[in-house]
Amino acid sequence: MNICIEQALTLLPDGEGFRTEVTDLYVEGDTIAALGERPEGFAAERTIDGRGKLVIPGLINAHTHAYMTLMRNAADDVPFDEWLFRGVMPREDRMSPEDAYWGALLGLMEMVKCGTTCFNDMQMHIHQTTKAAVDLGIRGVIGRGLSGTSTDEGGARRLREAQEEIEAWRCEPLLSFLIAPHAPYSCEGAYMQQAADLAERLDLGLHIHLSESRNEVENARREWGMTPIEYVDSLGILRRPTVAAHCVWVTDHDIEILRERGVSVATNPASNMKLGNGFAPVPRMLQEGIRVCLGTDGAASNNGLNLFREMGLVTLIHKGVQQDAVSVSSAEALKMATKWGAEALGLGAVCGEIAVGKKADLAILDAQCPQLLPANNPVSALTYSVNGSEVETVIVDGKIILENRHFPGVDEERVYYEAAHRAENLCV
Amino acid sequence: MNICIEQALTLLPDGEGFRTEVTDLYVEGDTIAALGERPEGFAAERTIDGRGKLVIPGLINAHTHAYMTLMRNAADDVPFDEWLFRGVMPREDRMSPEDAYWGALLGLMEMVKCGTTCFNDMQMHIHQTTKAAVDLGIRGVIGRGLSGTSTDEGGARRLREAQEEIEAWRCEPLLSFLIAPHAPYSCEGAYMQQAADLAERLDLGLHIHLSESRNEVENARREWGMTPIEYVDSLGILRRPTVAAHCVWVTDHDIEILRERGVSVATNPASNMKLGNGFAPVPRMLQEGIRVCLGTDGAASNNGLNLFREMGLVTLIHKGVQQDAVSVSSAEALKMATKWGAEALGLGAVCGEIAVGKKADLAILDAQCPQLLPANNPVSALTYSVNGSEVETVIVDGKIILENRHFPGVDEERVYYEAAHRAENLCV
Repeated sequence: MNICIEQALTLLPDGEGFRTEVTDLYVEGDTIAALGERPEGFAAERTIDGRGKLVIPGLINAHTHAYMTLMRNAADDVPFDEWLFRGVMPREDRMSPEDAYWGALLGLMEMVKCGTTCFNDMQMHIHQTTKAAVDLGIRGVIGRGLSGTSTDEGGARRLREAQEEIEAWRCEPLLSFLIAPHAPYSCEGAYMQQAADLAERLDLGLHIHLSESRNEVENARREWGMTPIEYVDSLGILRRPTVAAHCVWVTDHDIEILRERGVSVATNPASNMKLGNGFAPVPRMLQEGIRVCLGTDGAASNNGLNLFREMGLVTLIHKGVQQDAVSVSSAEALKMATKWGAEALGLGAVCGEIAVGKKADLAILDAQCPQLLPANNPVSALTYSVNGSEVETVIVDGKIILENRHFPGVDEERVYYEAAHRAENLCV
Repeated sequence: MNICIEQALTLLPDGEGFRTEVTDLYVEGDTIAALGERPEGFAAERTIDGRGKLVIPGLINAHTHAYMTLMRNAADDVPFDEWLFRGVMPREDRMSPEDAYWGALLGLMEMVKCGTTCFNDMQMHIHQTTKAAVDLGIRGVIGRGLSGTSTDEGGARRLREAQEEIEAWRCEPLLSFLIAPHAPYSCEGAYMQQAADLAERLDLGLHIHLSESRNEVENARREWGMTPIEYVDSLGILRRPTVAAHCVWVTDHDIEILRERGVSVATNPASNMKLGNGFAPVPRMLQEGIRVCLGTDGAASNNGLNLFREMGLVTLIHKGVQQDAVSVSSAEALKMATKWGAEALGLGAVCGEIAVGKKADLAILDAQCPQLLPANNPVSALTYSVNGSEVETVIVDGKIILENRHFPGVDEERVYYEAAHRAENLCV
């Protein structure tokens, strides 16, 4: 669709940081065609009055499990084992593919309402989050979670499912795929190698959980005499472009490996705190030149999917941990949630910033609300002051998927009903 | 006003915790008159359909400086000295009483929009935040910030102003007062004693900053051979009921003093992280039976005034610091933001919970939104999942002050205009 957003305060890249400028933004089809000057022959099908609005690149949630949204608030303030074995796993066992679909759709709606236009998901039921993403019109990076061994039937089935899913949806323009071995503790080494081989054959990257908890690292040392990161590196897995979620408990050597292999780290501040895992060494990783991006994780371990909240957390918590008011700036948080996320997902040429030639993935915020006034510093406001509800309009690939805070193409009441109803049936 | 809220999911006290129940809630005049059964002769002037809504006690912001809202995002990601000397102080110097009024009104609007019905404020311009609170209809606890010595004219003037302000506004039913010596580093010992004497004469409590930064504690040890908390205790200040903001850098002996004197600690998670001060030992204080309440601090050091965000932070950050998923529960965060806050401010008999006989200070949230579904656990959702924008209606002292997310009695556009315009004039 040809859209003109007139005279909005617009967040633009500026060297290593950002600047804001009141300008006109022209979307031609799926692409940002021009800023400031109307392209020749441009006819707007839609004109959006941007006065009093703030236009930003859509946020990129670099690590989530959207199907888990049905488990939101089902097991909180309990030890990890109780969370996993009494909260999450019994519900996961009862969950049907349809449940996963409705949970994912609810979760994706929450993301979009808070300005997210692209997400990287590891799911357990193929076709479900995938279908939800297509139905909603959000850009999605999909991975079927893989676990098991190179010889067991379950492991082999999951690998086949990953391929089936990619085959089934590869023509969808807003979807791309990663191969997603769950974690070294849930995948045999040879199985992870099969996953990496598949990624190589399909020319795809990997999505994996690494070094989330202290326990996991201690177990790895006992079992393999190495950290999880050293272990996967020793298996040759990290030759593929990799998004590693968490990386909380990392050694100096781990950081060296992550940097040398060009691994992108998806940090999940709320989830790491909620499950008692602590704080990833984000300031150190940034210093070492590791690409850090930002994720919400699933709604069972967060328990929201609002990436603005994670931006606020990632700026604040490291200032607290380091006792340094300068640690992790607003601009860095914003880059984690936009440009660096896009690059991590192999979408650096596609989205992640407002620039001519990039796809039109945009969020339009109402800037005339108490928490965004006075507008002393919009970049700072985006991490410290917004709550996500300022987002009024979301455009993905040139299509308006959220307008006036509602989804024109979705029966929202139905989604709420299905989610509430199906969650009840998951209770033990 | 007589109001009936019909069939809303309502958050009720239940022993040490909370429960939720779908019920009718009857407000008669300024008071919660009944739950469930219509009081005899009750005629509702307003009936609110509560289906799909969640009714909670209004939140209590136990430490803030509303006038500082004009300085929001004016100095972020910079060292403390630069924040104070280049960001805050030059703006404070230029700020007129009228600027303070409009900043305070904007800040109070932000608070109410996120469900806050009562705030505890330390201000620099008398009558301004006070007038803003009355104009908006929020319950306020006001303190004129005191600094100086027992002999300088400024110190004496500020003490006189504190009394003048109390005299001028004492008949306002929604206002109460604390005497507010700023901090031991900004008040001479004898001056703090004058403040405590004034509090005693007027039968009021105190509001003070204590042990916010490591630096402050080191300086106190050098100057007085004691921690700030030991110092104020040695001066006899803590004989008055006291709300102590921050208490980040506290010793075992400090904690003993706080407990023995019945001091209430207002913790400010975002502010303490943002300025690089770290994490207050909240889990320890809770264990020791100290009353902990929750504050946003001012918008220059947070940079928002959304108490739901602080609830989320106070549950999450201590789980991270302690590496313990059980540390600081949702129910504890909710009590800090409601009942314990009310008790800290001397309003325990007035507000802080939904109970018959308490004043009707209520927030009504839309529960039919993605982030609150499925409703597996509303208490948990209130700390982990909401962003504050779910609040649709706010009732203070039986009066509807926010309806459908707008203030019926306020020209919101004017407030936004004044705030934006006046903030520009504060820039150096």
